[in-house]
Amino acid sequence: MSSPRILDFECHDIRFPTSDDLDGSDAMHQDPDYSAAYVILRTDQDGLEGHGLTFTIGRGNDIVRDACALLASMCVGQSLHEITDDFAAFWRRLTSDSQLRWLGPEKGVLHLATAAVVNAVWDLWAKHENKPLWKLVCDLEPEELLQTIDWRYLSDAITKDEALEILRANKATMQERERALLERGYPAYTTSAGWLGYDDEKIRRLCLEGIAEGWTHFKIKVGADLEDDKRRCRVVRETIGNERTLMVDANQRWDVGEAIAWMRELAEFRPLWIEEPTSPDDALGHAAIAKSLAPLGIGVATGEQCQNRVIFKQLLQAGAISFCQIDSCRLGGPNEILAVLLLAKKFGVPVCPHAGGVGLCEYVNHLVFIDALYVAGETEGRVAEYVDHLHEHFIDPCVVSDAHYMAPTAPGYSITMKRESLDAYRYPDGAIWRRRVERD
Amino acid sequence: MSSPRILDFECHDIRFPTSDDLDGSDAMHQDPDYSAAYVILRTDQDGLEGHGLTFTIGRGNDIVRDACALLASMCVGQSLHEITDDFAAFWRRLTSDSQLRWLGPEKGVLHLATAAVVNAVWDLWAKHENKPLWKLVCDLEPEELLQTIDWRYLSDAITKDEALEILRANKATMQERERALLERGYPAYTTSAGWLGYDDEKIRRLCLEGIAEGWTHFKIKVGADLEDDKRRCRVVRETIGNERTLMVDANQRWDVGEAIAWMRELAEFRPLWIEEPTSPDDALGHAAIAKSLAPLGIGVATGEQCQNRVIFKQLLQAGAISFCQIDSCRLGGPNEILAVLLLAKKFGVPVCPHAGGVGLCEYVNHLVFIDALYVAGETEGRVAEYVDHLHEHFIDPCVVSDAHYMAPTAPGYSITMKRESLDAYRYPDGAIWRRRVERD
Repeated sequence: MSSPRILDFECHDIRFPTSDDLDGSDAMHQDPDYSAAYVILRTDQDGLEGHGLTFTIGRGNDIVRDACALLASMCVGQSLHEITDDFAAFWRRLTSDSQLRWLGPEKGVLHLATAAVVNAVWDLWAKHENKPLWKLVCDLEPEELLQTIDWRYLSDAITKDEALEILRANKATMQERERALLERGYPAYTTSAGWLGYDDEKIRRLCLEGIAEGWTHFKIKVGADLEDDKRRCRVVRETIGNERTLMVDANQRWDVGEAIAWMRELAEFRPLWIEEPTSPDDALGHAAIAKSLAPLGIGVATGEQCQNRVIFKQLLQAGAISFCQIDSCRLGGPNEILAVLLLAKKFGVPVCPHAGGVGLCEYVNHLVFIDALYVAGETEGRVAEYVDHLHEHFIDPCVVSDAHYMAPTAPGYSITMKRESLDAYRYPDGAIWRRRVERD
Repeated sequence: MSSPRILDFECHDIRFPTSDDLDGSDAMHQDPDYSAAYVILRTDQDGLEGHGLTFTIGRGNDIVRDACALLASMCVGQSLHEITDDFAAFWRRLTSDSQLRWLGPEKGVLHLATAAVVNAVWDLWAKHENKPLWKLVCDLEPEELLQTIDWRYLSDAITKDEALEILRANKATMQERERALLERGYPAYTTSAGWLGYDDEKIRRLCLEGIAEGWTHFKIKVGADLEDDKRRCRVVRETIGNERTLMVDANQRWDVGEAIAWMRELAEFRPLWIEEPTSPDDALGHAAIAKSLAPLGIGVATGEQCQNRVIFKQLLQAGAISFCQIDSCRLGGPNEILAVLLLAKKFGVPVCPHAGGVGLCEYVNHLVFIDALYVAGETEGRVAEYVDHLHEHFIDPCVVSDAHYMAPTAPGYSITMKRESLDAYRYPDGAIWRRRVERD
């Protein structure tokens, strides 16, 4: 089987009008239209393509798509093996282009676009190997896995040798753990009940439905109004009872002191964590909040808008987080995510990935199995986000059963969208959007 | 004089082919084409426009221009006073748009674009008031100045009351300090001699020319090769003598441990500071480097790629920097720069702005006078970067005399480019670029 060569690419601006129902609304993002900058890498092998997307929430998705095109053009002409034989070098070419890096470096629009393109390369690799991505990664030797990672800026927190030791230990026991994990799945939690735009009755109903489906962890949005938050936390706690778990999420709304004061008021509802209490850039701020809330039994969680491994490194070094919430589209693909999983393992912090949006659950489904089998080596104290939105647009959507993610079985990274969805939701010329423009 | 209303805007992708001569080359940016995403806000008052730019180094400048257009469209229909009467609210609308913020927040492409648009608004305001920008700001009452700043995420480091106290004290003594400062100018240093692409003979010649022009501080690029760095540091130190000052700049090339080891090797040349030793996102890494290098008398400087006030806040809280290098296009305009100047004052760290590129010296010329007169209240231990490139394209270029920036006198923010420069360097259709395409 010869190595496929990347011949050309497509980049699309795909948007779903989710703001119609306030799905996904929170204290900072009142009206998200879940969107994807979508990349297809086409090869010289019949029917073999790599698909990747990065998630945004609407306006500006075209800018990310254009950035994807700049980066995807760097792949054209390369064979898959030229890339994967020194994947870290390829990753650094994308993230450290001598002119483009000024626009980041490794953050914001450029890094979101890096995720889409790098995810597409991994999807191509996994499809070519005829394996689901998690299995491709778990089948790599420890040294092979490590050579996908750009180690720049990490050595003060973790060395390659330490990472190698972690991976070797887990590789040795992987097989015996794999069977049980595949059978039970990876524990998940639901955010579907708690969007800020929902009224109490809807929250109560969704919690009851969640309990009936087997969910044990429920997350709700807070941060806009304290009395409102107390009422909503009470509704949830009363509905889910004391034996189930509540988490709350402020989406960066607060200053440091404000976060501490606000959470003292919500402590009576015993949330497991406060998520994104303040700026995602503020490692020291999160550390101050963590220190103040630890005596109340409330952990700090963040990560969905943490731009790169350097921020995660500092959050971990500073003892700022009890839960590490990687995002599959904000970090620059599995290469960088693996680095953060290793950092979290080194510092003993459980990884509880952010998901939802569009496609994030599909990605995360692979990442949690990689973490459980190869890096963390366990699922204890871990729970991955799940939101039941927009899965119908994917050819191999994630499967969640009894509140657990089940291991993907189809080759690739599970992110290939149906062609009819790409066509219908393309902005602004797909049928869904054309119809809206005519209606307005 | 009624308040002008913003009617529409232009956004341009302007690029200068500076990579031809390796001007601006360093260990991470080998071939910059100094570029500007350029914004013109047009008003209903005859001939009155606000001009602003953000600086990039080439590829991707079109993406930043498109982001500028998204943000500039939010200004259309507003009167200048509607904006400036609650400037912080306007700033937050730009930086916290409920969908666009996902692409940052407050970092990378979106925040660079924020700078261009916000700078254009300030230019418009200063032109309307018929004052150079520094004078407009210095004429504001302390309370008026503070209401331009978005205080979110700052209160754990500085309160509004503390800021008010700083400004009131300086306001009281401003007049007596202003005369002397205007006469002497603000101290500057030159980077023109030390780009990584220059050979020893060119460095020596440029240092000698610099000495003849009155320069006392010389900065060179390091970080690509240790032996090469030693040789080049020796050339500079031998040429400028012991009575003048050398600074070195690694442009983020190193890991934390590597930075410490490398700088121990260069300590014999007694650099005042090591600039950008590692990732601009790594406050804790800079703090570790600062701690190790302090006994050698070497300070740590960073800032030109620090994305926002939250990163500067942490650098200052962690004791990570001895010199705070704000960038006039990376931070979101004077509103956010004022916040960082106040933070630096609170923590007792001198601000030594980054400049060079295209237009940065023009902006910085205003910012240093604001700092010296209103925030720091002094110039002691401060020195602002100056590079003698591309000033000929501006209608009111900065004036540097005897190694000092002289106070701008023309109304506005000094960033208005000549129309013929905009036309000639517009990418890819301006005459300069069309000619290249034909030649290639």
